[in-house]
Amino acid sequence: MEKVTTDICIVGAGPVGLFAVFEAGLLKMRCHVVDALAAVGGQLTEIYPKKPIYDIPGFPEVLAGDLVKNLQQQIAPFHPTFTLGERVEHLDKQEDGSFIVKTVAGTEIACKVVVIAGGLGSFEPRKPAIENLEGYEGKGVTYMVRDPEEFRDKRVVLAGGGDSALDWTIYLADLCKELTLVHRGTTFRGAPESAEKVLHLAEEGRINLVLKSNVTEVHGEEQLEGVTIEANNEANQVEADYFIPLFGLVPKLGPLENWGLELEKNAIVVNTFDYSTNIPGIFAIGDINTYPGKLKLILCGFHEAALMAQSAYNIIYPDKKFVLKYTTVNGIQELQ
Amino acid sequence: MEKVTTDICIVGAGPVGLFAVFEAGLLKMRCHVVDALAAVGGQLTEIYPKKPIYDIPGFPEVLAGDLVKNLQQQIAPFHPTFTLGERVEHLDKQEDGSFIVKTVAGTEIACKVVVIAGGLGSFEPRKPAIENLEGYEGKGVTYMVRDPEEFRDKRVVLAGGGDSALDWTIYLADLCKELTLVHRGTTFRGAPESAEKVLHLAEEGRINLVLKSNVTEVHGEEQLEGVTIEANNEANQVEADYFIPLFGLVPKLGPLENWGLELEKNAIVVNTFDYSTNIPGIFAIGDINTYPGKLKLILCGFHEAALMAQSAYNIIYPDKKFVLKYTTVNGIQELQ
Repeated sequence: MEKVTTDICIVGAGPVGLFAVFEAGLLKMRCHVVDALAAVGGQLTEIYPKKPIYDIPGFPEVLAGDLVKNLQQQIAPFHPTFTLGERVEHLDKQEDGSFIVKTVAGTEIACKVVVIAGGLGSFEPRKPAIENLEGYEGKGVTYMVRDPEEFRDKRVVLAGGGDSALDWTIYLADLCKELTLVHRGTTFRGAPESAEKVLHLAEEGRINLVLKSNVTEVHGEEQLEGVTIEANNEANQVEADYFIPLFGLVPKLGPLENWGLELEKNAIVVNTFDYSTNIPGIFAIGDINTYPGKLKLILCGFHEAALMAQSAYNIIYPDKKFVLKYTTVNGIQELQ
Repeated sequence: MEKVTTDICIVGAGPVGLFAVFEAGLLKMRCHVVDALAAVGGQLTEIYPKKPIYDIPGFPEVLAGDLVKNLQQQIAPFHPTFTLGERVEHLDKQEDGSFIVKTVAGTEIACKVVVIAGGLGSFEPRKPAIENLEGYEGKGVTYMVRDPEEFRDKRVVLAGGGDSALDWTIYLADLCKELTLVHRGTTFRGAPESAEKVLHLAEEGRINLVLKSNVTEVHGEEQLEGVTIEANNEANQVEADYFIPLFGLVPKLGPLENWGLELEKNAIVVNTFDYSTNIPGIFAIGDINTYPGKLKLILCGFHEAALMAQSAYNIIYPDKKFVLKYTTVNGIQELQ
C-alpha cells in the first residue's frame, strides 16, 4: 500500500491532466497523477492514438499519440509522479483542509488540492447482449480499435451505425482480408459523408454491408472463429477472426459521484473564474466539467488548467503573492 | 479604396486572431483579418520572433515565429483574406445589425460579426526624452531587439531596469563587441535571478554596468556614433553603434476607445460565456479583453476564440442549429 505526499493530486492522466502538471509546475507546485488506465493520455491513447487531431492550436495535424508524447516531454522538467492502472475510489477531507485520495488498490495520496481531469469519467464500452460475448474478449472480441495493424489481412466483423462504426469501416476497408459491417437499421446516425463513403465501398464490393441485421451469436473453440448474423429470423453464420461491436461508450463518473460535488448531466459544475467546484480545494477541468458555454475540446481544458493553477497556488502558498511570469522571458525553472 | 465583404472581420493578426480564423472556419464562417502591422503574428513576429515559447500546450519549446507559421498553415484551408499595414479606425453599425469596419487607408470591410483580437492594442515604445533621438531611429537607435544577430560584434548601449533590459543584456553579453547597460537606479525592477546574472556578468567584466546614470545625448553624423552617459552632473561620452532604450511599451487601444465598448484598465470587458462585449455582434479575445480570472496567455486566447465562434455562428446562421463535430472524426472541410 503506497503512500504519496504531494501538492496537487490530479485525477486523470489525459491531455488536460498532463498539461495541468505544466501549469502547476510553472508555479512551483508538485503533482501526482492517478489514472484508472495503465497508460497516460486518456482517450487519446486508449481510443484513437493513431488518429490525427486537427484542432490543437499550432498543429495543423497531430496524431493523438504524438500529442501525448509532446505533453509528457513538456511536463518532464516538473518531475510529476504517477499511479496508473488504479481507479480513484475515496476522498477524505482532513481537518486542516487537505485531502487524502485513495485508489481501489489502496494507494493513498495526501495533497492540498485535488484537480479532477477525468474526461468522460471511467467510461465503458456499451456491449451488445450476446451470450458468452465476454468469454471471447481478448480472443477475437474487442470493443475498440487500438492499433489498426492488428486487423491487417484478417476477417473482421464490425457492428454499429454511428460515427465510430462508419469511420473504422472506411479505415479498415482495404486493410482487412474481409470486412463486414452489420447494422440493425437502414440509415446511419454518423456523418452523412461517412455514410455515403460506406455505401460506396459496399457497391464496389470492397466491404460486406449487412443492413437490418444483428449479430446474435459468437462461435469458436479457444479463439473466435465466427459469428451468427440474423435478419428477419433468418440466421447466417460467417467466419471471422475478429468481432468488434462499436455501440459507443457509456461514461460513468463512478465513485466521484459520491464525493458531494455539484453535478449536472454527468458533469461537475464549476465556475469560470478558476474552474473550482462547490468543494473548496477541488477543481474540475476538461471534459468532466460543465459551465455556461462549455465546449468539450482539449484546447479549452488547457485554458482551464492555467486558470485553475492560479487559485491552487493561493491555497498551497497562502502567504506568497503570485506574479505572472512569461516563459518567453524566463524559460522553465525545473522542479528538483 | 478596397471594399471587402465577409462573415467575420477579425481586428488583429496575432496568434489568437489567426486561430479565430480556424475556429470560425470549422463552422463554415469566412474571415477577413486586419492588422496595423505589415506582417501577421502580432507581437510574436514584431517583438520576439526568435525567442522560444514554452507554454503553448503540446510544444515543449517553439520559436514564436514558428508558431505563427504553424498557425498560418492551420488556417490555410479556410482561405482567410488580409488587410495588413492598415490600422482600423472607424466602426459603423448598420441598421440590419451588420458592421462596416474602416481602416485609416480607407479600406472598408462589411461583416456581420467583429472580433477584436488586438493584443495590447497598437502599442508604442516608451521613448526617453533625449534631444533628436527620433532623428537616429533606424540609424542606430531602436526600441526593440528583433534579430539579435544585428548586434553581433557591435558596440551596444542598452538602457533600462526592467525584465526586458536585463534579459537582453544577458542574451547579448557575449554576442556584442562591447555591451553597456545604463540604469538610473541601483536596484532592478526585473526578476531577481536576472538581476543577479547581470551583476555577475559585470563582475566578470563581460559587460559594462553603469548604475545611477542616464543616457542624455546621442551623437553621430549620419549614423549613431556615440552617446553621453550622465551621473551626478558628470558626463561621459562613449562610442556606440547602437543605442537601445528599453523602457517598456505603452499600450494604446487607439481608435477602439471611441467605439462605445465597456473598458476597464485599457482592456475590453467581456463575459466568459462567449467573450462577447457590451455591443451585440462584437467580441474581444486574447490579451485585449478582461474578465474575472483573466490571464494574458496565448493559450487562453485560443479557448476564447473557440467559444466566441459558437455565438458568432448563431449570428451569422440564425436559422441553423449547430452540432459540435470533432475534427478527429470528420477532419477539416476546406472552405471554397
